Amino acid sequence: MPEETVRPSFFVHPQGICESTTVGPGTRVWAFAHVLPGATIGRDCNICDHVFIENDVVLGDRVTVKCGVQLWDGLRVGDDVFIGPNATFSNDKFPRSKCHQAAVLQTHIANGVSIGAGAVVLPGLRIGTRAMVGAGAVVTHDVPARAIVTGNPTRIVAYVDATRRPARTPSRPPAGGDRAPSATSIPGVFVHQMRYVEDLRGSLTAGEFPAQIPFIPRRYFMVFDVLGKEIRGEHAHRRCHQFLVCLRGSVALVVDDGKNSEEILLDHPTVGVHVPPMVWAVQYRYSADALLLVFASDPYDPEDYIRDYDEFLSLVAR
Amino acid sequence: MPEETVRPSFFVHPQGICESTTVGPGTRVWAFAHVLPGATIGRDCNICDHVFIENDVVLGDRVTVKCGVQLWDGLRVGDDVFIGPNATFSNDKFPRSKCHQAAVLQTHIANGVSIGAGAVVLPGLRIGTRAMVGAGAVVTHDVPARAIVTGNPTRIVAYVDATRRPARTPSRPPAGGDRAPSATSIPGVFVHQMRYVEDLRGSLTAGEFPAQIPFIPRRYFMVFDVLGKEIRGEHAHRRCHQFLVCLRGSVALVVDDGKNSEEILLDHPTVGVHVPPMVWAVQYRYSADALLLVFASDPYDPEDYIRDYDEFLSLVAR
Amino acid sequence: MPEETVRPSFFVHPQGICESTTVGPGTRVWAFAHVLPGATIGRDCNICDHVFIENDVVLGDRVTVKCGVQLWDGLRVGDDVFIGPNATFSNDKFPRSKCHQAAVLQTHIANGVSIGAGAVVLPGLRIGTRAMVGAGAVVTHDVPARAIVTGNPTRIVAYVDATRRPARTPSRPPAGGDRAPSATSIPGVFVHQMRYVEDLRGSLTAGEFPAQIPFIPRRYFMVFDVLGKEIRGEHAHRRCHQFLVCLRGSVALVVDDGKNSEEILLDHPTVGVHVPPMVWAVQYRYSADALLLVFASDPYDPEDYIRDYDEFLSLVAR
Amino acid sequence: MPEETVRPSFFVHPQGICESTTVGPGTRVWAFAHVLPGATIGRDCNICDHVFIENDVVLGDRVTVKCGVQLWDGLRVGDDVFIGPNATFSNDKFPRSKCHQAAVLQTHIANGVSIGAGAVVLPGLRIGTRAMVGAGAVVTHDVPARAIVTGNPTRIVAYVDATRRPARTPSRPPAGGDRAPSATSIPGVFVHQMRYVEDLRGSLTAGEFPAQIPFIPRRYFMVFDVLGKEIRGEHAHRRCHQFLVCLRGSVALVVDDGKNSEEILLDHPTVGVHVPPMVWAVQYRYSADALLLVFASDPYDPEDYIRDYDEFLSLVAR
Amino acid sequence: MPEETVRPSFFVHPQGICESTTVGPGTRVWAFAHVLPGATIGRDCNICDHVFIENDVVLGDRVTVKCGVQLWDGLRVGDDVFIGPNATFSNDKFPRSKCHQAAVLQTHIANGVSIGAGAVVLPGLRIGTRAMVGAGAVVTHDVPARAIVTGNPTRIVAYVDATRRPARTPSRPPAGGDRAPSATSIPGVFVHQMRYVEDLRGSLTAGEFPAQIPFIPRRYFMVFDVLGKEIRGEHAHRRCHQFLVCLRGSVALVVDDGKNSEEILLDHPTVGVHVPPMVWAVQYRYSADALLLVFASDPYDPEDYIRDYDEFLSLVAR
Amino acid sequence: MPEETVRPSFFVHPQGICESTTVGPGTRVWAFAHVLPGATIGRDCNICDHVFIENDVVLGDRVTVKCGVQLWDGLRVGDDVFIGPNATFSNDKFPRSKCHQAAVLQTHIANGVSIGAGAVVLPGLRIGTRAMVGAGAVVTHDVPARAIVTGNPTRIVAYVDATRRPARTPSRPPAGGDRAPSATSIPGVFVHQMRYVEDLRGSLTAGEFPAQIPFIPRRYFMVFDVLGKEIRGEHAHRRCHQFLVCLRGSVALVVDDGKNSEEILLDHPTVGVHVPPMVWAVQYRYSADALLLVFASDPYDPEDYIRDYDEFLSLVAR
Repeated sequence: MPEETVRPSFFVHPQGICESTTVGPGTRVWAFAHVLPGATIGRDCNICDHVFIENDVVLGDRVTVKCGVQLWDGLRVGDDVFIGPNATFSNDKFPRSKCHQAAVLQTHIANGVSIGAGAVVLPGLRIGTRAMVGAGAVVTHDVPARAIVTGNPTRIVAYVDATRRPARTPSRPPAGGDRAPSATSIPGVFVHQMRYVEDLRGSLTAGEFPAQIPFIPRRYFMVFDVLGKEIRGEHAHRRCHQFLVCLRGSVALVVDDGKNSEEILLDHPTVGVHVPPMVWAVQYRYSADALLLVFASDPYDPEDYIRDYDEFLSLVAR
Repeated sequence: MPEETVRPSFFVHPQGICESTTVGPGTRVWAFAHVLPGATIGRDCNICDHVFIENDVVLGDRVTVKCGVQLWDGLRVGDDVFIGPNATFSNDKFPRSKCHQAAVLQTHIANGVSIGAGAVVLPGLRIGTRAMVGAGAVVTHDVPARAIVTGNPTRIVAYVDATRRPARTPSRPPAGGDRAPSATSIPGVFVHQMRYVEDLRGSLTAGEFPAQIPFIPRRYFMVFDVLGKEIRGEHAHRRCHQFLVCLRGSVALVVDDGKNSEEILLDHPTVGVHVPPMVWAVQYRYSADALLLVFASDPYDPEDYIRDYDEFLSLVAR
Repeated sequence: MPEETVRPSFFVHPQGICESTTVGPGTRVWAFAHVLPGATIGRDCNICDHVFIENDVVLGDRVTVKCGVQLWDGLRVGDDVFIGPNATFSNDKFPRSKCHQAAVLQTHIANGVSIGAGAVVLPGLRIGTRAMVGAGAVVTHDVPARAIVTGNPTRIVAYVDATRRPARTPSRPPAGGDRAPSATSIPGVFVHQMRYVEDLRGSLTAGEFPAQIPFIPRRYFMVFDVLGKEIRGEHAHRRCHQFLVCLRGSVALVVDDGKNSEEILLDHPTVGVHVPPMVWAVQYRYSADALLLVFASDPYDPEDYIRDYDEFLSLVAR
Repeated sequence: MPEETVRPSFFVHPQGICESTTVGPGTRVWAFAHVLPGATIGRDCNICDHVFIENDVVLGDRVTVKCGVQLWDGLRVGDDVFIGPNATFSNDKFPRSKCHQAAVLQTHIANGVSIGAGAVVLPGLRIGTRAMVGAGAVVTHDVPARAIVTGNPTRIVAYVDATRRPARTPSRPPAGGDRAPSATSIPGVFVHQMRYVEDLRGSLTAGEFPAQIPFIPRRYFMVFDVLGKEIRGEHAHRRCHQFLVCLRGSVALVVDDGKNSEEILLDHPTVGVHVPPMVWAVQYRYSADALLLVFASDPYDPEDYIRDYDEFLSLVAR
Repeated sequence: MPEETVRPSFFVHPQGICESTTVGPGTRVWAFAHVLPGATIGRDCNICDHVFIENDVVLGDRVTVKCGVQLWDGLRVGDDVFIGPNATFSNDKFPRSKCHQAAVLQTHIANGVSIGAGAVVLPGLRIGTRAMVGAGAVVTHDVPARAIVTGNPTRIVAYVDATRRPARTPSRPPAGGDRAPSATSIPGVFVHQMRYVEDLRGSLTAGEFPAQIPFIPRRYFMVFDVLGKEIRGEHAHRRCHQFLVCLRGSVALVVDDGKNSEEILLDHPTVGVHVPPMVWAVQYRYSADALLLVFASDPYDPEDYIRDYDEFLSLVAR
Repeated sequence: MPEETVRPSFFVHPQGICESTTVGPGTRVWAFAHVLPGATIGRDCNICDHVFIENDVVLGDRVTVKCGVQLWDGLRVGDDVFIGPNATFSNDKFPRSKCHQAAVLQTHIANGVSIGAGAVVLPGLRIGTRAMVGAGAVVTHDVPARAIVTGNPTRIVAYVDATRRPARTPSRPPAGGDRAPSATSIPGVFVHQMRYVEDLRGSLTAGEFPAQIPFIPRRYFMVFDVLGKEIRGEHAHRRCHQFLVCLRGSVALVVDDGKNSEEILLDHPTVGVHVPPMVWAVQYRYSADALLLVFASDPYDPEDYIRDYDEFLSLVAR
């Protein structure tokens, strides 16, 4: 913040407009902020640039209102409240241009509340003591004391200061036949069509090393129970070949050689992808039931992993 | 708002900047707002503090633009529109710094629309007459006339002014017997209670033409596998009668004659609704398993459809 | 944009404030924008109306900062970055008014990133090279290079420039035996392991009063059909002991004595928790099928409930 | 079988006991079999070793009763019936020793029936013409004419002599376009391929009267929630045309003109079958979620139904 | 049956073989039946054609053995038992030709039992007083007194002579309010309607001791994950009161005081049943998701249980 | 059994009928049994009361046929077979009275088989060496050697003489660490505990060749979508090693070296079993979601398979 000229009671930046006089000592009103005459503001508040405060607004002491916030008629703000930048309030549930309500809805922000950057608070709500509204949250219901809420609409995700105790606890696959693997836009990455047999007793898929899969495996691993749509796997190998088959569900694989990248959906046990060394690979969009089987040409060696994309880029650029 | 100095044509706050002169009488431009010279603004508008309006922007009459809003090139705003504080627009789907599109995407905001506080509207969309965008909503698709949308991304949650007709209890269908169809608030639209028989062998429901359903069908069609909460069906017919039954799951039907509208929940195979010609009908809020059967009095004829709500309004107003 | 007066090095609108002098040539600072003296800004940047830039901020070259954006201490922005209108940053994960962090969290925006209109970026994150944050997105995790993220919270929906290949079309609770209850961080709150017998005929769990559960129940109640992740139960008792067992599904229990709090997941019928009087307890994160059984040492008495957390705090502080 | 001594009317093995004299010519009674005096037995029957026949029993001509079978009072057996070894009948639903019913329950075995080895038939049932009871089956309900039943309790698994028409593949419905209905082996019965449109908004199937479906409907009915694998519908109409579409799940339709029969699997909403008058139709093997829609050319008229298969046979034979 | 020659003590058909002389008066042995010398047979029995009885077999009085039955060494049959035609017993669980067990397994058929036509009974089982085995049933477990069993393997489908109390409708629980418990046909057994509250946050049901439930619990237990339709609980208590509530799913409770019995369906958490001491209680027909909560007035004491129905009968008869 | 008169070669009860003379010494034919002249019966057989044996029947030595059984033309019975009372055979799949097949279907009962009381065997099947058919079972498919089958229709429930190895606990897999494989009762067959890592991003299991799995794979195959409880896999390999892991669901593996057999439940992805050459292996009791991964040391070679259990026995006996 720029240097300020301390005044006996409160400070207003030369390019700020403060029409109210009921402002507590120590409070500062910054550039391009605008306070209407009816507003009541406590002591030691900080009203940042581009804030707008209407008349029927009451702020307690030590309140911070970051840039880009408007405080509308009907807002009641306690002490020690933090209102993040571009947080947005309203006082009319069904606003229509030029149709004014008889009385605006009051919104109550209790002591010690923090409202995150860019959050939106619907009118007429109460936000309880020390509650914390996450950045970008859209608050549609009252928030209990000490709750942390996020999301649109908001959900409680935790409580302030609570230690967490660890929980105790195809459709039409082609029948038979060998097909040549198909190339992709990434040199060395091939999509294989595995053998598939389906009969009354069940289904079977199979592959042979190195006749079909061009290396001898020294390791296999399986990834499963991946939550939601998280990424699981994002790295390249220096020497190790991999062959990936998704046995259940689906997962998207992005392969990238630093110049091109391509995304392959693994969604049937007959689809295998060979990823040679020095190809950056990402697996994401796991379905809830996804079960990914990987054959590797080498035993596990943490030194073989390149986990930094920029390092990868510099290595392939040589 | 602070005291204003009335000027013959429109008002600009001393710390506001209005470079345009095509501004209607009664319009006010407040502190720290900035209107570029090419903008066209109607009469009796209210341009609040910290608003920024680019050149290729057209606003109708009686528009309210609350604080912290920017209106970018390509925006077309009708009459009586409300744009809430910090609502945010854009005109480029994949913006990159210093990479300007050949032509910006136009966004159309029809008459009477309200856009909630902190809502975000993606570029190139149309928001239909009197629609209401909820606070904090992120609008990623066109919004039909009169729809209320919320969430990120937005879904239609209701229609403005539509009376909701209480849902039937699907677990207690009335046994046997004929009942007279019950009228709705929309002339010509009747809710029929279809015959229902349930026994150990299964359940059966039936209807007869024209004894119960007041026309002879020349066509049937079924709608199913509708994803999520999308709309499927939004139009009126010039001559064709329809009779709708939801055989599985549920779907909400909004019927509208241009004056009133009513929402009917179809949630049991014994509920049938007769929709005569010249009634605007919307089906939405399909459950995942919804299966909607429609009988039509006429063969398929694309000329019979009125797909534009404003055209419909003008036709029924005659 | 209005006509500008070209200056040798960079342009500042007459109604903008630029207190920094480390601004590259070709950069423009527009009306009502405010740049503090410590900020470092590259060349050919565009700082639009109503932007606020703090001191400990570094911008690369050719950066666009659209209206209504604030750049806070700790932000590091690469070259060719686009920051959409009303996009919002922060530099404190748990902001509290007047409680300043020893050091702000740095947020890194790599080269070529675009941040959509109205997006919110949580503090301390890294947004990788050329990533794209969708309009209205709330970024809660690091964004990998080239990822496209949308939603609240954001999920990766695609990778920039990646060609898409078309789709080919209870556990074991311990058997028998008595175990001593295990203490928690909250004095008086113990987690009990209930007796459990499982055989071919089904499963059985049991407890005895007061041999195992240290009071005689005068009341039981069950809570079920709780929607989503709502809270159901948030209070302390003055005299009544409670013993909670979750028979189906799971529910999170927060216990709090005013000094510490701890969260316990009840996810098996053999886990019981004894909550003595004067412990604040919250139940939340009910699974859809949760069925919570509570034994109480006293008949129902509304006077026994402390429902206000502040009252609770004052009572335990004595 | 051992050498037999031919007698003018019927043969009894020297170690068999036949106390009845109302036995038709050509009938043979073998060793250790025992026929009580009141029994009436037709001509050319074969009563094997260890069979026991009580008094109030009537057998038609050419009946085979294999070893180890007892025929109790109240049993009525038609012509050409086969009763496998150790098949077991009863005539009392709740037998108690020395507690005799006022009147025994009659069991009717129609002409041409076969009852498998070791099958058990509960008392008081009717087994229809040419039906076949599988080995080891336990028959707890009436068996329709020509049905094949197996299991404990029995379910219908097929119909005798019905050609099975290969099922369509529901996952690949043909897009758009009109196709001529395909004929079946039953004159007048045609399989129609209904129009089908699938897009992002969901799926739609449709048909037009009489352009595609060769009558004008005066009635529709839907059958759903059919339990297990029960039959629902088994009759012919005198004048009414029907058109059947299975909207969800699947159901097997057997059509029969008294000479041939054919089974058609309705397993997709795009498969419709036109059943003209004077065709016997059975629906069975409903999947749990089956939803069968039927259009009828006439209003409901109980006089139009032919519910007895033998009456149907006599009508079509004229 | 054929004419018989009455003999002073018992009758044997001329073509039957009875090698035993310990046969009671009035008993009849019919043609092709064969009784070995060691068998003991009571009075007024009826041994039909083709029956075979080994040596170590004891039959009570008034037993009916229908045709085609064999009674093997180790079988003990009470009075008034009915054994249907072709019902089959065995006395070796893993029979191998020429490998004889040291001792055969005994099978006990209690007084008044009926075994249906063609039923199969595995070795070593007990079939309780007045139980009824359905035709074609394959009995693989002991059958409790008075149970009716059918199927392969058998399940209990009902109890002989138990009045069924109509099920409550779980979807319409009464709101709030206290109701007097309703009496049943068994003295001391009452059905209670528990308090029930349903609101937006979920549902709650509760009970108080001893205000509503007429004892103070010293123990609770829960039964769940009961497979199929097994019995779980069949006994009376000498001193302990129980109170049963089914929290999820449903379970059938049969209560019996030795004179009458009644079946009560527990299918909603608001239905509680108080079972006082000296009432025989059976729980069966558990739904897959059933969760039964029981409160007991006393700690667990194996001496308090009466597990033998005949002992129970003798105790209540005093 | 009654006193018998020993005859030089075989015994026939005075009230039995034996028309065949190709009966081995020591064989006994009891009262009311009837053997037709063409039957061939081995030595030391026991043909009990009420048995009937047709002409085209061959019995081995030491066969027991209990009462009430018929052996029809086409039946071939090995040595040491036990056929329980009232067990029932047939030789015509679709029997119709007086419609004789050109040739009856043969049924083969291998050496050492036992068929339970009241079981029913459909025509044309093979029941393998030492298999055991449960009492009341209805056999509709071939029964493999040593399998135990029960139910209607029959399913394999176990294997004769196979020790069951207790199932692992899938929910508590050991974290990390290498463990030595554990031996089984079959030389060369080892159970391996694979590495397992579980974290917030999902779960991972892995194995290395040949460090952990003692061969280098040249092939993998996966078996899935196995219906019900069918067998899938029953053979030995001459040279090929296999390593089996069940990735989802569970499957039972029976390993057998011709002397001992053992059953291992594969129910977690961390359980692997190494099956060396010349071990007979059966997989059965697949859960509906089972997904079995097999690594093989050799490419597919049909010559490497031993599919006949008797051939296997003779090879390992060398």
